[in-house]
Amino acid sequence: MAWQRKDLLGLEDLSREEIDLILDTADAMKDIVLRPIKKVPTLRGTVVLTLFYEPSTRTRTSFELAAKYLSADTVNIATSTSSVTKGESLKDTVRTIEALGTDIVVLRHSAAGSAAQLASWVKCSVINGGDGTHEHPTQALLDMFTIKQRKGTIAGLTVTIVGDILHSRVARSNIWGLTKMGARVRVVGPATLLPREIEKLGVEVYHSLEDALPGTDVINVLRIQRERQQAGLFPSLREYACLYGINRERLALARPDVLVLHPGPMNRGVEISPEVAEGPWAAIEEQVTNGVAVRMAVLYLLKGVHSDAAH
Amino acid sequence: MAWQRKDLLGLEDLSREEIDLILDTADAMKDIVLRPIKKVPTLRGTVVLTLFYEPSTRTRTSFELAAKYLSADTVNIATSTSSVTKGESLKDTVRTIEALGTDIVVLRHSAAGSAAQLASWVKCSVINGGDGTHEHPTQALLDMFTIKQRKGTIAGLTVTIVGDILHSRVARSNIWGLTKMGARVRVVGPATLLPREIEKLGVEVYHSLEDALPGTDVINVLRIQRERQQAGLFPSLREYACLYGINRERLALARPDVLVLHPGPMNRGVEISPEVAEGPWAAIEEQVTNGVAVRMAVLYLLKGVHSDAAH
Amino acid sequence: MAWQRKDLLGLEDLSREEIDLILDTADAMKDIVLRPIKKVPTLRGTVVLTLFYEPSTRTRTSFELAAKYLSADTVNIATSTSSVTKGESLKDTVRTIEALGTDIVVLRHSAAGSAAQLASWVKCSVINGGDGTHEHPTQALLDMFTIKQRKGTIAGLTVTIVGDILHSRVARSNIWGLTKMGARVRVVGPATLLPREIEKLGVEVYHSLEDALPGTDVINVLRIQRERQQAGLFPSLREYACLYGINRERLALARPDVLVLHPGPMNRGVEISPEVAEGPWAAIEEQVTNGVAVRMAVLYLLKGVHSDAAH
Repeated sequence: MAWQRKDLLGLEDLSREEIDLILDTADAMKDIVLRPIKKVPTLRGTVVLTLFYEPSTRTRTSFELAAKYLSADTVNIATSTSSVTKGESLKDTVRTIEALGTDIVVLRHSAAGSAAQLASWVKCSVINGGDGTHEHPTQALLDMFTIKQRKGTIAGLTVTIVGDILHSRVARSNIWGLTKMGARVRVVGPATLLPREIEKLGVEVYHSLEDALPGTDVINVLRIQRERQQAGLFPSLREYACLYGINRERLALARPDVLVLHPGPMNRGVEISPEVAEGPWAAIEEQVTNGVAVRMAVLYLLKGVHSDAAH
Repeated sequence: MAWQRKDLLGLEDLSREEIDLILDTADAMKDIVLRPIKKVPTLRGTVVLTLFYEPSTRTRTSFELAAKYLSADTVNIATSTSSVTKGESLKDTVRTIEALGTDIVVLRHSAAGSAAQLASWVKCSVINGGDGTHEHPTQALLDMFTIKQRKGTIAGLTVTIVGDILHSRVARSNIWGLTKMGARVRVVGPATLLPREIEKLGVEVYHSLEDALPGTDVINVLRIQRERQQAGLFPSLREYACLYGINRERLALARPDVLVLHPGPMNRGVEISPEVAEGPWAAIEEQVTNGVAVRMAVLYLLKGVHSDAAH
Repeated sequence: MAWQRKDLLGLEDLSREEIDLILDTADAMKDIVLRPIKKVPTLRGTVVLTLFYEPSTRTRTSFELAAKYLSADTVNIATSTSSVTKGESLKDTVRTIEALGTDIVVLRHSAAGSAAQLASWVKCSVINGGDGTHEHPTQALLDMFTIKQRKGTIAGLTVTIVGDILHSRVARSNIWGLTKMGARVRVVGPATLLPREIEKLGVEVYHSLEDALPGTDVINVLRIQRERQQAGLFPSLREYACLYGINRERLALARPDVLVLHPGPMNRGVEISPEVAEGPWAAIEEQVTNGVAVRMAVLYLLKGVHSDAAH
């Protein structure tokens, strides 16, 4: 199949075939990231602009390098330095960005649905780099790519997502993607951090790791955000670590060849113990490398749509 | 004719022939901006450095992309991150910048005359990216380029500039450029926002849109800066919109084929109504694209001076 | 000899032969900086990432341009925008940076020893861009390169370092480098700004310029940091200028062909008088150009180690 979409807004919309195409393309891209000379001319003369209304060095840098490895030009706009401070509307901002010659915009914004909204206003491609608590598709794609590389397949595996499911766009995108690819998905966390009716998304809900981990092939440990604790959604970091932190003992409850993922940055000693983070089951740095490969794949596929349209 | 100047400091200094040369060069450059592969090797190995003492994502990004489309290397320095915080003088800063290998510096500074001052200290080229309330030559050049593209000519047209003329470097550069190119220029705004003796620059002064708009070919709507209102220079945003906002009714007072320009970012509903901003008479996004083309032309012409000198 | 080290952490560790190799390589690199077309393909496909936990436009820009002249890709991370704000450990940050495909990290950090610590955690190369009051090796290398270019040699010269020796990483790196290269090093400054037992590093200690300057071939004037004065380490800027400021009269005490260096940015009228800063004995801008050449040399040599390892 060939890629047809102008934008990458979320995994809820994508078909299994589309996800497969991205993951297969990422496979070829990863070879480039691992070379001593990380540069191919594929996207020469293409402009990739990152527009971040929330700070994120990781995601922004990953997209920036993905673009550079493909020889695209990159420009970064962060809220603090943007005309946003002059009260410009998102619509006017993005139209200006398109008029500058931008081919692909990567948007990070605190409002759910902002990427889709923005995509409807412009002809250039939009990648959702995280929209509120809604979706973060490239993070879920890199998680799935890491699972596929380590396990050979996604279908049939049991993946347990641990932590703040309620506020996590990473969890949401993973749930949509993984279920589509044929995995069995479990979510586990404090009742205050589990959305109501989450079962409707096709996942199994647990409240204790002791119940959730047996039979688990992959644990995806979400980052705990300290502001939730201040908001009273769980008692204390210490208690959270005690009940939901992934340590050696808990790892032993899962399958012997369990794989541990974390989107980073980690709160070592809170949601994940240092020895779990450093062990052979963890793929934390591999996820970072895979993130670049997946983003290269997405940039490449989106650009292809426009080049085809030009014929 | 060939370009001879080391710097672009303002339109007051330029001859009609020089402005024509920039606009003609921009014409060729615009083709590059509109291509799927926006990259020519013209300025390979040239360093363009933006030095911004006032925040401006639009102008900085426009210069940055103009440089990149010509294959120049770019470096951005903004005050917040600069050695400026260590109390270094502008003179030492710019000499350091030159010694790093910089060919062209784009300066944005709150002091009128700062770009000319800086240009006198260094051998590298200086582009005035806005100096206080004095000049913003590339903005006026892109406005004129847009007029020329839409109307075929500038000479003989009536251009009405609306708003805060007193504090606007955009207005000042436009007045110098447009009168030089043979346009008839009108300015209109509250008496508190019109400079005394502005007539001496060869413009006609009006206090109401109803008087100014009849016979107008081009309306250039200036951005209203909210801090002026707080300073008591006009009663309220609502009253400003009421008296000087450009809406459908007022547009009807001008020539039928009137062109509407705005330097952005727009305060929709204040100085310009949403329907005017979205209509076929408006060229807001076109101005942005033209801004990149004009800046490519200026970078190209300035670099040529140094290359010729090298022979 | 061939370069063997993965990292450049400081001059205390380097041999005279290694320093010679860097300075000889910088000689070839300087030709590139002075060309109209400043671009060679040497490091194409290499990623240089600057990670600055303290602000420094000069050093960051110098490294960024050095990398770009060699066709490397560059990414800048400054604390204010980094995940550091999310409480990530330095270890996790740098591992993430390596996993993105980074070949060389330039670190600026307030903790002495941070660069060495970081280098032990990753396989990619680390350049110390200044670690607390410990070392700033590329600054000392550019100072030595400037001396060698102006004087033909370093061995046998008398170099006097003036100012806040106690808090200066520039002084420390210069002392290690210069003594290794066979220069005679003098330090002079207020007793409160001279470290105890500094003689053990093989330098001569003076408390007045009148004693220190006679016989001096090179004066390296350190920047005075105003916060030291607030901390009561010297009475006032005026008194400091009076006792330790380098002016025309004092210059006359040194050798007739004395060379004056300053790492910048200068406090004119405090540690250096304007006429000294502007005279033919000063090499302030030359140091900036040489800084780019030295950093190109270091990037080139470090990258070579990895390329050799790949065979």
